[in-house]
Amino acid sequence: MIELDLIGIGTGNPDHLTGQAIRAMNEADLILLPRKGDAKSDLIDLRRGICANVLTSSTRVVEFDLPVRDAAGDYHEAVGEWHDAIAAAWKTRIALHLPDGGRLALLVWGDPSLYDSSLRISEKLRAGGMAIDVRVLPGITSIQALTAAHAIPLNALAEPVIITTGRKLREHGWPQDADSVVVMLDGGCAFDTLDPQGIEIWWGAYLGMARQALVHGPLAKAAPRIVEARKALRERHGWIMDSYLMRRDMRHGT
Amino acid sequence: MIELDLIGIGTGNPDHLTGQAIRAMNEADLILLPRKGDAKSDLIDLRRGICANVLTSSTRVVEFDLPVRDAAGDYHEAVGEWHDAIAAAWKTRIALHLPDGGRLALLVWGDPSLYDSSLRISEKLRAGGMAIDVRVLPGITSIQALTAAHAIPLNALAEPVIITTGRKLREHGWPQDADSVVVMLDGGCAFDTLDPQGIEIWWGAYLGMARQALVHGPLAKAAPRIVEARKALRERHGWIMDSYLMRRDMRHGT
Repeated sequence: MIELDLIGIGTGNPDHLTGQAIRAMNEADLILLPRKGDAKSDLIDLRRGICANVLTSSTRVVEFDLPVRDAAGDYHEAVGEWHDAIAAAWKTRIALHLPDGGRLALLVWGDPSLYDSSLRISEKLRAGGMAIDVRVLPGITSIQALTAAHAIPLNALAEPVIITTGRKLREHGWPQDADSVVVMLDGGCAFDTLDPQGIEIWWGAYLGMARQALVHGPLAKAAPRIVEARKALRERHGWIMDSYLMRRDMRHGT
Repeated sequence: MIELDLIGIGTGNPDHLTGQAIRAMNEADLILLPRKGDAKSDLIDLRRGICANVLTSSTRVVEFDLPVRDAAGDYHEAVGEWHDAIAAAWKTRIALHLPDGGRLALLVWGDPSLYDSSLRISEKLRAGGMAIDVRVLPGITSIQALTAAHAIPLNALAEPVIITTGRKLREHGWPQDADSVVVMLDGGCAFDTLDPQGIEIWWGAYLGMARQALVHGPLAKAAPRIVEARKALRERHGWIMDSYLMRRDMRHGT
């Protein structure tokens, strides 16, 4: 039996780790750390640093090369194949390092519930016949790191919020049901497809990290600043992760 | 100058506190704890317990009676007046305990960004002329505690999620923009107003606490179980806080 802990580690600030996360890391027999290639070596360095800082037990830390997603073809098909490849990579390391079962921990960026595939991939292992018991430990998401960095509420008073992707915003425009919209997984400044009139934006990149970058303002003025900052930062660091909250003319104060 | 830290403390599991939260509590000169009346004395007990567990410094902890919101009349007007009363209560304690300024901390249930008024109330103090510098420290929300407890993702693969209130769900029905809906601030089982066909629900109360209660299933079957559990739990404990995620026929797997 494999006891799998999916541990949310927040978005790069080791001080955002919860006591529960630190304890679970120390109770694990094995922690698997994914290497995502040279361009994103900061991300494995960050996880290595967290392990070095908080592990006081005999937990083994093993790195593996994360399979790369095929960027071409149908999105859902490519993601499905990618998840299969990751499940196979996990399975190989489990067979090698935990042949008699034990406690495995994975350090998940942000929170395992939000735009993360670990739960789906562990379902694939279960479906493939592995005896696996999954526990989820929540972590601070980039949405929370964003609103904390800007010191703003996510929602207008008693009003709804929609969390969506760059792709959806680009395809469908501003959602009908909410005046507050969080956009994630946006590789290409989808805010630029909106009529900026009456929209305010709070943007953040590398949230929680020392190199955190923030822009806030009316969308018309902020958009070109974000596009420029995003390009420069991506060049400087080799990768970027960002997200943003937009709010439309609020009906009920702030 | 008042340095105000709004510290997200999660939803009742002291193990969900972040390292940053614990440090900020210890760096504060004063922590104000709100008393919400006898029926909700568990909530002040929980905050007292957190203070007792994590404070190793000379931080003073002062309790005050939280003003009560007028349940009658216009909702937004009543909330505005309630926030004014809370701002006045904070101001009185600040004048009494930090007459020369200093570092004040408030322990916010969940995360200060999500359906919490502390940011709005601190804006009122600033607007009233107080020199106040606000910092937000994120905490685990009840949404994350809910998805972690059920070990489920919040979103379907690359799909949006809407976070809304019981009142909005009741007024507008299922939102148009998302097949995953989180409902908060629902005092009256608004899910019961939906046609349950094709809807799955994951419900949780007292999330993160020892008395945590969970129900999961197709809405048609789960709804009466939730209504009954909610009533019984509310009677037993004198109060209840719950939230739920619903998902409609998913187009793209889980």
